[in-house]
Amino acid sequence: MTARLSLNQATTTQWTVPEVVSGCVQAGISGIGLWRDPVAAHGVEETAKLVRDAGLTVTSLCRGGFFQSPNAIEDNRRAIEEAAALGTGILILVSGGLAEGSRDVDGARQNVIDSIAELAPYAADHGVQLSIEPLHPMFCSDRCVVSTLDQALDMALQFPAEQVGVCVDTYHIWWDPNVYKAIERAGDRISIFQVCDWITPLPEGVLLGRGMMGDGSIELRRLREAVDATGYTGPIEVEIFNQQIWDQPGTDVVNRVVETYQTHVL
Amino acid sequence: MTARLSLNQATTTQWTVPEVVSGCVQAGISGIGLWRDPVAAHGVEETAKLVRDAGLTVTSLCRGGFFQSPNAIEDNRRAIEEAAALGTGILILVSGGLAEGSRDVDGARQNVIDSIAELAPYAADHGVQLSIEPLHPMFCSDRCVVSTLDQALDMALQFPAEQVGVCVDTYHIWWDPNVYKAIERAGDRISIFQVCDWITPLPEGVLLGRGMMGDGSIELRRLREAVDATGYTGPIEVEIFNQQIWDQPGTDVVNRVVETYQTHVL
Repeated sequence: MTARLSLNQATTTQWTVPEVVSGCVQAGISGIGLWRDPVAAHGVEETAKLVRDAGLTVTSLCRGGFFQSPNAIEDNRRAIEEAAALGTGILILVSGGLAEGSRDVDGARQNVIDSIAELAPYAADHGVQLSIEPLHPMFCSDRCVVSTLDQALDMALQFPAEQVGVCVDTYHIWWDPNVYKAIERAGDRISIFQVCDWITPLPEGVLLGRGMMGDGSIELRRLREAVDATGYTGPIEVEIFNQQIWDQPGTDVVNRVVETYQTHVL
Repeated sequence: MTARLSLNQATTTQWTVPEVVSGCVQAGISGIGLWRDPVAAHGVEETAKLVRDAGLTVTSLCRGGFFQSPNAIEDNRRAIEEAAALGTGILILVSGGLAEGSRDVDGARQNVIDSIAELAPYAADHGVQLSIEPLHPMFCSDRCVVSTLDQALDMALQFPAEQVGVCVDTYHIWWDPNVYKAIERAGDRISIFQVCDWITPLPEGVLLGRGMMGDGSIELRRLREAVDATGYTGPIEVEIFNQQIWDQPGTDVVNRVVETYQTHVL
């Protein structure tokens, strides 16, 4: 019942890399989504070995992107190399928002496409697909100018499928009146499927407002079925940014992830 | 330079109805957008007379909608009657979110259409057009299941133009990759145009996070020009929900509205 379940490391930031690896093994979770910062803290090669020895599959690396930064291309090349070293074929891209003081959202979006064009062949050479993640429109100005799945797909389709795909995260797209058509259209461009729930009120800054599956408003099972209907059989990553969840013992969180995944997603 | 400027009353909640009417007159603002609660506190007929005697035009009444409530139809009939009594031809509808405990967003959206179908002839009999306002997707679960201008338009187009239009508010739609196409498509269905800016970080609950024009990320002039290009020549309402703005003297706020409207919107 948990064959496809993957724990995204951002769900349990209270844990170090060795702790989250061990936590996954103990909970019977075979997939893990990693983040660059904690991986860097433990060491890329050390993390790769630890995960491999534990028998875990790295389902994605978060994240590349933030293309409004001056050194973005160079930083994204490092991210691609890290993904390859960690043994995952998927680097998730959060595009970044507007440059400081800018209102040029069209320009920022074009810069995302141009940056991906520069990076995609390098990624493919490393066996890594870039996965464009649309973020909820409330993040448009400061984190991600890619705001809908259709928009992410319009970008991805400008590149070969092995180079660029899309990340489908229920939190960011559930509200979209076109979401089911967009998922169908995404088809085999879906690199990775992520789940968590939408809860209110949103906290200040809105970043840490995600909910455990079943606690909120999202039709998680319906979205999972729509993703599966495209032929996607890959991992289902649970990624929850939530300070209250981070304040709990990691083991409790993971047990609840396993339980609510089976109740609300499967 | 302020011929089209209208002050939405929600921008200056520190003011009573007589204060906001007097504040508009003193600032040379000829239009006012009213809200039902403060109007009720002052009296509908009394407000109508006060505004008329001051020579102000009521550019809209906020708001009908919230169709997930059990008594929504009856309450919206009262709102239509109030709009007519206040001398405005436009009642803005904020659709409401999901019913308590529900995840059925499709059902909630269908209920919006069904409710409008029930109300639209009654509104037309009163010389009032219902104006569907898409709210930013961050309000989808708790305030408004109408999340994009295209979606609002798809609903409005099911009814005669004199019965149902759409409200274009820069705050809610600026992020949409399709926003300019949607505005063009909206054409003569645009009932009313509202402006304010997008600023971050969003406060807890996100409702009171709107910015004064020029303080944020929105290309206000470009959006105003796109709305004008449809042939819209109506009022431009400034509507800013922001606790810090409400904590300032109303006169200072209105002076800044007049100034930033001319600098960033015209």
